[in-house]
Amino acid sequence: MKTNLGPRNCLYPMPTTLVGATVDGKPNFITIAHVGIATPGMITLGMGKTHYSNAGIREHGVFSVNIPSEELLEKTDCCGLVSGREIDKASLFSIFYGELDRAPLIEECPVNMECRLVKTVEFPTHDLFIGEIVATHCDEEVVEGGVVDFALVKPMLFVMNDRSYWRLGDRFAQAWSAGMELRKRLKASD
Amino acid sequence: MKTNLGPRNCLYPMPTTLVGATVDGKPNFITIAHVGIATPGMITLGMGKTHYSNAGIREHGVFSVNIPSEELLEKTDCCGLVSGREIDKASLFSIFYGELDRAPLIEECPVNMECRLVKTVEFPTHDLFIGEIVATHCDEEVVEGGVVDFALVKPMLFVMNDRSYWRLGDRFAQAWSAGMELRKRLKASD
Repeated sequence: MKTNLGPRNCLYPMPTTLVGATVDGKPNFITIAHVGIATPGMITLGMGKTHYSNAGIREHGVFSVNIPSEELLEKTDCCGLVSGREIDKASLFSIFYGELDRAPLIEECPVNMECRLVKTVEFPTHDLFIGEIVATHCDEEVVEGGVVDFALVKPMLFVMNDRSYWRLGDRFAQAWSAGMELRKRLKASD
Repeated sequence: MKTNLGPRNCLYPMPTTLVGATVDGKPNFITIAHVGIATPGMITLGMGKTHYSNAGIREHGVFSVNIPSEELLEKTDCCGLVSGREIDKASLFSIFYGELDRAPLIEECPVNMECRLVKTVEFPTHDLFIGEIVATHCDEEVVEGGVVDFALVKPMLFVMNDRSYWRLGDRFAQAWSAGMELRKRLKASD
């Protein structure tokens, strides 16, 4: 039996990220889980206009997306609870830079992406920043066979509905493979 | 030690969805995990322009986002392997409609969102469809205390890097809470 919850966003879980930007000349980080993938090489950030970081992303046209592991729970959650206007959040982390000198990266996060802003879509309350990934840095320990193994990253998955963080479970199937037999049957019966 | 993987998208895992549209007058579904959240009430879909469904979303200005559970693995993966130009994928599911009569919903998926297209951002190879959620239907069995419990949904989480589906793990912390003590300490020391 279906129930209508009204217009409730249930596109969860989403990966929790720490977005880095240079604001008022200094590195700042904000916790954002309202993210997305626009194209294979482009990332979206849905950020409320009241945030301190938005002006820095607009000014310099770059940002970083850092993926914290669950060991960074306290610091990651804190970066969503306090504004860079009040607190120097960069002091919580060791910072490094890659190719974009205004996109601060967090050493303690196992995955770090540098992005160049390609488009900003404005809504009344939010900016949707769309960035192209320029370079991706990872801890060597989370890379297996040339690709990131997310079991080793231990990301914090976010669900807004009950304001919770979840662990990633186990890898249980291969994509573009699990449905191949059914595809054959459908094509044969067509 | 960090390693530079080049511009590799590592914003994973993402929730695997079945996107519904009316194409050439008939319901069709396509598997999309390159999704996102633009604002609390708006969803993004990053869809390659070669897909059959894009024209239907543009024509009618509506689409649905259905979240399959892992029990729908074979059908969900198959819907990403074959085009609606070749096969009637709607026959794989029981379909129902809510408020938008061109946004087909899948009965077997525990969560169904109806969306009205509010903006399309075009890239050379992809359309980024941004839709406002109009109504969300759920199986009563996955709702706990008025909100969706994702442990009961059993979503298929997608990682492109190794083309894999993952289970959701356990809920391990509360957001806007786990970092509250650290926030207090930072503010006190400021």
